[in-house]
Amino acid sequence: MNSQQIFEQICRKQSFLCVGLDSDINKIPQHLLKEKNPLFEFNKQIIDATAKYCVSYKPNLAFYEACGENGLQQLAMTVDYIQKNYSEMFVIADAKRGDIGNTSQMYARAFFEKMNFDAITLSPYMGEDTVTPFFSFAEKWVILLALTSNASACDFQMLKTETGLMLYEEVIARSKNWGNADNTMYVVGATKAEMLAKIREIIPEHFLLIPGVGVQGGSLADVARYGMNDICGLLVNSSRAIIYADNSKNFATAATQKAKEMQTEMAELISRKPL
Amino acid sequence: MNSQQIFEQICRKQSFLCVGLDSDINKIPQHLLKEKNPLFEFNKQIIDATAKYCVSYKPNLAFYEACGENGLQQLAMTVDYIQKNYSEMFVIADAKRGDIGNTSQMYARAFFEKMNFDAITLSPYMGEDTVTPFFSFAEKWVILLALTSNASACDFQMLKTETGLMLYEEVIARSKNWGNADNTMYVVGATKAEMLAKIREIIPEHFLLIPGVGVQGGSLADVARYGMNDICGLLVNSSRAIIYADNSKNFATAATQKAKEMQTEMAELISRKPL
Repeated sequence: MNSQQIFEQICRKQSFLCVGLDSDINKIPQHLLKEKNPLFEFNKQIIDATAKYCVSYKPNLAFYEACGENGLQQLAMTVDYIQKNYSEMFVIADAKRGDIGNTSQMYARAFFEKMNFDAITLSPYMGEDTVTPFFSFAEKWVILLALTSNASACDFQMLKTETGLMLYEEVIARSKNWGNADNTMYVVGATKAEMLAKIREIIPEHFLLIPGVGVQGGSLADVARYGMNDICGLLVNSSRAIIYADNSKNFATAATQKAKEMQTEMAELISRKPL
Repeated sequence: MNSQQIFEQICRKQSFLCVGLDSDINKIPQHLLKEKNPLFEFNKQIIDATAKYCVSYKPNLAFYEACGENGLQQLAMTVDYIQKNYSEMFVIADAKRGDIGNTSQMYARAFFEKMNFDAITLSPYMGEDTVTPFFSFAEKWVILLALTSNASACDFQMLKTETGLMLYEEVIARSKNWGNADNTMYVVGATKAEMLAKIREIIPEHFLLIPGVGVQGGSLADVARYGMNDICGLLVNSSRAIIYADNSKNFATAATQKAKEMQTEMAELISRKPL
């Protein structure tokens, strides 16, 4: 999938919502625990309930790995289910990996070949040669952590470096030429929306994956104001606010409602900036 | 396992060798491919062949994830095999994870409870709250990436920051107080051994996990000279030079030979600095 195809889906659905499948065996509705594959059952119902209102799904690997091999199996089933039923979706492995070249090759095969993900999130700490092996897979994407939405993101990401830029800006400025705007995105937390303006000066064309709207407190309007470009250029993630909107047997209906609310707000923001 | 117990093993075996189980389905001897669990069979033989000469094993997660659920199963079998037969070993999950607090909890459960690893490698990029959840598990360790051994480590790790320290020094200086010398180690590549002296000024007591000796070109003598402390304080990893020393049916014998060579050199270095 290239950036133009992602943009077409955004226009068609009037949404730039990514639903984060942080599916936690300790948090999903109790009645699903009797199923053989409770995480997959949960995901399946969440996906059917929200697909109309989003353009992307992002399973967070930790929640599946915490359930051992069976968890990974349910992750693979989830990716298959999305590809078979909603092939228009951009599916992100939120893995935050980052390792030396030969290991990156192994991860690339695991996520792009074994499982048919469109993209993987990576940590930039180890530099270029941990990222470039992923670019040899056509139509697949790397999503680099730049400015994350957690409280201690400032520990290192906001350190000023010798170049005058903060570390997260340095990460973006250096890495933008490793790939291009059709195979690289950046994670930028919504909790620091005003910083998006400066980021857009460095990378006007790249897509940004924005966590931290909702539970973590970021504002969707601010994100659109500072971050939207000519092809929208945004995928805004919401996980807990949608998938755990209700913990009863009605969880899927509640998820639909929450996803629809976000899509409605997104349609309004898109219409204000004709793309 | 605490640092004193690791030190006792080092003294007993006269070795601070960690064998990296980067077991690649495309590189292990062909005759093993007919086995139901080829990676586990390979690991089992490598472990039996090297256990006398090392104090630690470090499976690299990527190589197991690349084989899907069955790969993860073989990883779990490997960890079980080590714990049952060589319970003195310090077993490291080379996972290089790093994610927000609630996700870190999930990873901690996956690696410390589901699988009985002693330690996990983490990327520091997202800061303190991605690390501290791992400290709630008694006798378990976090191993933070500081200065890695790959060519592009310098992209960001060696940027000078506003504090006057380079990023990797800043990572060590800030994080050393998140935990303590009994639950935190640091990855420092052997390819930059002279930098170990400066690192020892910041953290005289912590254990360091040193990759990059052998294939990646670092010298064991330099590592010992600049990095050894009163409890040795070093785990030197070797992966490919040992596990792929020979690609025939004699691979285990060749691995014994290589591990023994390194142990002999380590015994000599230990004797020069009476611990």
